[in-house]
Amino acid sequence: MTEQIKGRTLGGILYKGFELLDLYGPLEMFGQVGPELRIVTVAQQTESIRSYQGPQTVAEYSFDECPSLDLILLPGGFGTVEQLGNDRMLSFLRDRSALAEITMSVCSGSAILARAGLLDGRRATSNKWYFNLATSQSDKVNWVAQARWVEDGPFATSSGVSAGTDMALGIIARLFGEKRARRIADGTEYEWNSDPNRDPFHKFLNKGRL
Amino acid sequence: MTEQIKGRTLGGILYKGFELLDLYGPLEMFGQVGPELRIVTVAQQTESIRSYQGPQTVAEYSFDECPSLDLILLPGGFGTVEQLGNDRMLSFLRDRSALAEITMSVCSGSAILARAGLLDGRRATSNKWYFNLATSQSDKVNWVAQARWVEDGPFATSSGVSAGTDMALGIIARLFGEKRARRIADGTEYEWNSDPNRDPFHKFLNKGRL
Repeated sequence: MTEQIKGRTLGGILYKGFELLDLYGPLEMFGQVGPELRIVTVAQQTESIRSYQGPQTVAEYSFDECPSLDLILLPGGFGTVEQLGNDRMLSFLRDRSALAEITMSVCSGSAILARAGLLDGRRATSNKWYFNLATSQSDKVNWVAQARWVEDGPFATSSGVSAGTDMALGIIARLFGEKRARRIADGTEYEWNSDPNRDPFHKFLNKGRL
Repeated sequence: MTEQIKGRTLGGILYKGFELLDLYGPLEMFGQVGPELRIVTVAQQTESIRSYQGPQTVAEYSFDECPSLDLILLPGGFGTVEQLGNDRMLSFLRDRSALAEITMSVCSGSAILARAGLLDGRRATSNKWYFNLATSQSDKVNWVAQARWVEDGPFATSSGVSAGTDMALGIIARLFGEKRARRIADGTEYEWNSDPNRDPFHKFLNKGRL
């Protein structure tokens, strides 16, 4: 018998006004893993979803038709605020993260996870400039103000925008080994900040205005 | 009379098998400039274009219907090879770069620009791992093997994948000032390699195999 490769499926969750690099930094890195990891895009409806910056991404699956997800990637962005009141999004994230191996958020995406109650009792971080947006969603989360990203059990949350790319490589290291993550960083000519505790942007904590 | 802001339009050029971060790293940064810069997506036909990693981006304009472009952004990726023989792509790039303020390529995108003859007599760089793919398109280009990115007149070419994000901030600094570029890097929690001559990935020159 030939050895069976365990295939995983990663779902990138889209919503109007998501931040481009929150989604595509991690998808670039996960996309280098190869046939062991399939990437799909998911939104409430199958349609083209406009990012905050303008360009539109195709959602291949609706929440209802979405295949089983091993990994979930939730971007942030100014569209976050609307999603905090979207019960369909919150219940989709509750249902699917319960079955997933790892649920990741980038930037203000952790505000949505916290609103869904998914981070209660766990350590988590968020965008530095708008940290209050996350912390105000739940006081049962152990919010970590100084971290590039935080892993706690099946959840991983990153700081703002670019931090998601560093977290993605951290998760690749966890699932596929450190060597693989290094090779992917080198192949994409990416200077990986591989230390989750090194946070050069902590100094901007809550300096942003919504 | 109120002061008129000079509005610019940036066109992200899509083709099948483009590399995600080549496009979206720069678009994240340019997307922070605000109303002075409009981002549009362009491809040979108006359709959804599948990236090398899988996710599809909507092309809002076809080559024929594309509005006037002040800035052009051409990503690389394994889809590059097919485009080297696509006369419609080459002639579109020739026609539009002649009218544009700056034409940028990321990664192997410079191989396409070189094939179109646009870099002849100029300094340019490309992806380090597959540097030969670019240099073999034209021996009239002054290929720079060690650079994060290279600016020469109305053309700017970057090294592989992640280097495009550093170049984008460099072009933002040139057009809108260094302060603005720094603010955007800080706002997106991005550690900008702002020195175009600092190339940590030069050591991988031509180590890749197509």
